Amino acid sequence: MLEQLIDALRVLPGVGQKSAQRMAYHVLERDRDGGQRLSEALASAVERIGHCKRCRDFSETELCATCASASRDGHQLCAIESPADRLAIEQATGYRGLYFVLQGRLSPLDGIGPRELGLDQLADRLGEGEVRELIIATNPTVEGDATAHYLAQIARKHAVRPSRLAHGLPLGGELEYIDRGTLAHAFGSRAEITE
Amino acid sequence: MLEQLIDALRVLPGVGQKSAQRMAYHVLERDRDGGQRLSEALASAVERIGHCKRCRDFSETELCATCASASRDGHQLCAIESPADRLAIEQATGYRGLYFVLQGRLSPLDGIGPRELGLDQLADRLGEGEVRELIIATNPTVEGDATAHYLAQIARKHAVRPSRLAHGLPLGGELEYIDRGTLAHAFGSRAEITE
Repeated sequence: MLEQLIDALRVLPGVGQKSAQRMAYHVLERDRDGGQRLSEALASAVERIGHCKRCRDFSETELCATCASASRDGHQLCAIESPADRLAIEQATGYRGLYFVLQGRLSPLDGIGPRELGLDQLADRLGEGEVRELIIATNPTVEGDATAHYLAQIARKHAVRPSRLAHGLPLGGELEYIDRGTLAHAFGSRAEITE
Repeated sequence: MLEQLIDALRVLPGVGQKSAQRMAYHVLERDRDGGQRLSEALASAVERIGHCKRCRDFSETELCATCASASRDGHQLCAIESPADRLAIEQATGYRGLYFVLQGRLSPLDGIGPRELGLDQLADRLGEGEVRELIIATNPTVEGDATAHYLAQIARKHAVRPSRLAHGLPLGGELEYIDRGTLAHAFGSRAEITE
């Protein structure tokens, strides 16, 4: 039974044999109540959390709270790779538009293509005519860039203006420690200082 | 519900807000079956795994398989800090004696004293007269050393011979990278080479 628990813990990302063992022992030695709570939380989340039919984010209801809200601006749509990105944007910015969650990025080798990312659904949405700007907030990685390129094409086809988050030096970073690609990009995209 | 799951995942050691988020998303996006299995494994482990009344290791039965086995040598008892140490010793050595699991180490600041480690029970066991050698395999840390010292006193009081795992250079290690304490100890404890 202990072996089953250790095995089962390995479904969690980044958890190998050793950490799974440590986790199992920790729960059994020090926090059985917590283990019970985790068991229940997992069971009900797995059973009851589905996807919002409009933005594909996780949701217990057919339409998530953001999509259902009357106070969000339907003219702006922000495409993100994962639900965690939505949290990050909500916490850091004053963005009041809507989201579209790709739940991944184009990655042909892993069998993730336009269909898996719901791009048909996105195209339909842009075709409805309400969205004016598609803010593409995929990660600044090779695959994220390819996905952004593809999304921009879809947007243009529907006469929606695509935009992309700015790249450059992170605030508080030191030039010396910035990777070369970022530094080269920031240097090339330098902006004139106006009074 | 997602928030509850993320919160609940933080009972696992080494899991903070960010990793809990990543784990929850991973389970919901990619492995709901695994999440379901983990939920069940946790529930039954928490409910059904107790402690062996003889060695204090985790066990589903009153007496664990090792303590119940007729083929183990009752003259040797190995005191270890945690069940994981038993696994490590079983896998690495040919030890055929029994174990006593402290489930911790003396740590007065954390409120862990002789009672929490079951040292009364250990003393009773040594008093029974069957055990001839107490192999003290606590970790080579300050607290592990203090615990070992205390255990050795108990053993001597019951005329049981205490022994401790050898300290020295790890096999395959390079002198240059060994910490100074270990090197000093290994140097001081050097043994004569006989033909």
